[in-house]
Order: sequence, then structure tokens, then C-alpha cells
Amino acid sequence: MTETLPIAETSRLIASDLVNGTPVYSNNGEHLGSIRNFMVDKASGRTEYAVLQFGGFLGIGNDYYPIPWEKLGYEPIRGGYVVDITPDQIRSAPRYGEEAPLFDKDYDQTLSDYYRTPPPFI
Amino acid sequence: MTETLPIAETSRLIASDLVNGTPVYSNNGEHLGSIRNFMVDKASGRTEYAVLQFGGFLGIGNDYYPIPWEKLGYEPIRGGYVVDITPDQIRSAPRYGEEAPLFDKDYDQTLSDYYRTPPPFI
Repeated sequence: MTETLPIAETSRLIASDLVNGTPVYSNNGEHLGSIRNFMVDKASGRTEYAVLQFGGFLGIGNDYYPIPWEKLGYEPIRGGYVVDITPDQIRSAPRYGEEAPLFDKDYDQTLSDYYRTPPPFI
Repeated sequence: MTETLPIAETSRLIASDLVNGTPVYSNNGEHLGSIRNFMVDKASGRTEYAVLQFGGFLGIGNDYYPIPWEKLGYEPIRGGYVVDITPDQIRSAPRYGEEAPLFDKDYDQTLSDYYRTPPPFI
């Protein structure tokens, strides 16, 4: 699979409508998938989840996986994110199809329980 | 002009690809324009600028105005942002057309000088 960097990408910032397609790697360098979008707190402007799309590798199809932001690290050299989760964790992770769920407190709790991350700043 | 809320908007988070069209108001309640996109720090996930699009009202056309995040306040009741800038400030503000500039340190400096905001976290 060929990965291309989003246009209008600069050294430090990215336009919110261009994050789609940013590659995502595992800790050991495997290409896992790509970013679909970010879920951003409307008041604070903080990204709380990156929604990942895993195509091909796991054969899962068009399911989307919201991952707490603290599980991602940006790697400028690769122009992508390394995510601190295992394929096993992904297999049973919270996911959704074309219709996104309501990201309410219950869903925040589900995600923080699953990934053992602190509940998001509220 | 009829404003509609982006779909998949929840009470607290918004998908980064759906911020386009979010209405923007002045301090005294005038509808000024709408959000085109956010400029997000790839490593920290923080939104540093909201890019505003002013159509009609000022007759400026398709120019885009990056505004430091701290100049915006979110108003849940209206489902939009109130921006602490005057029409006069907008008239001579840094702007660009279809091709976005490189958001480098010089541009950060230009914007923080213009809006008298602290330079963004680096």
C-alpha cells in the first residue's frame, strides 16, 4: 500500500480536514492502518481521540476504532503515528461502522476502561 | 442564511472533518462567517488556529483567516463560536486564498503580532 502525506501538511500543524489517511504503525513498525479523523473537544480544541481505520492487514473492513490520544505518538520522520496497542487489543476493541456513536460520558468510560487510560478532561 | 449543525456532532466532541460550516459570531451577536477547518498540532493534538471563512457579510469572497484559538469561545446553545475580533480587525487581517501558506514560525509570529496573542506552544 502506498502512503502519501496529506497536502497542506507543514512541519508542525495539520489541517483538520486533511488528517484522513495519515498512516498508523505499531510499536514494532508494522503498518496497521490510517487515521480517519480526530474527535476534538469543541470548547478546548483538544483532540481526545484519533479514529483509526484498519484496512487489509486485519481484514476487518470499514470499521472505525477511536483510540485515546495518549496512546498515539507522532513520528515526524515517517509522517505518521505509532500507536501503543497490540493487534490482539485491536481485535476486541470498541468500534463502529459508518454511523458514529454518541461520544458521551458512557462511551468515554467504555474507552478509558478498555485502553486503561484516564477518562478525558471534562 | 440558514445554519445547520454538522452531523455527528455530540454534546462535547466534534469530528475533525465536520467542523467545516460551524457558524462564527461577533461579540455582539452578528453572524460573521463560518469555520473552514482547524489547524492542529500533530504531536500534541491541540488546535492552534481556527480558520474562518467570511462570506457575504464583508463581501470578501473565498479568503481564509487563521485566528488564534484563544480568540474563540464556544457557545453550546448556538452551536457555534464567538470570536473576540472586530470587523475592522478582520479587514486587514492575515489571510490566504485556496492555497494555504506554510504555518511556520514566521507565520506564527505574524499571527501572534496581529492578534496580540502569545506565540503558540512549540
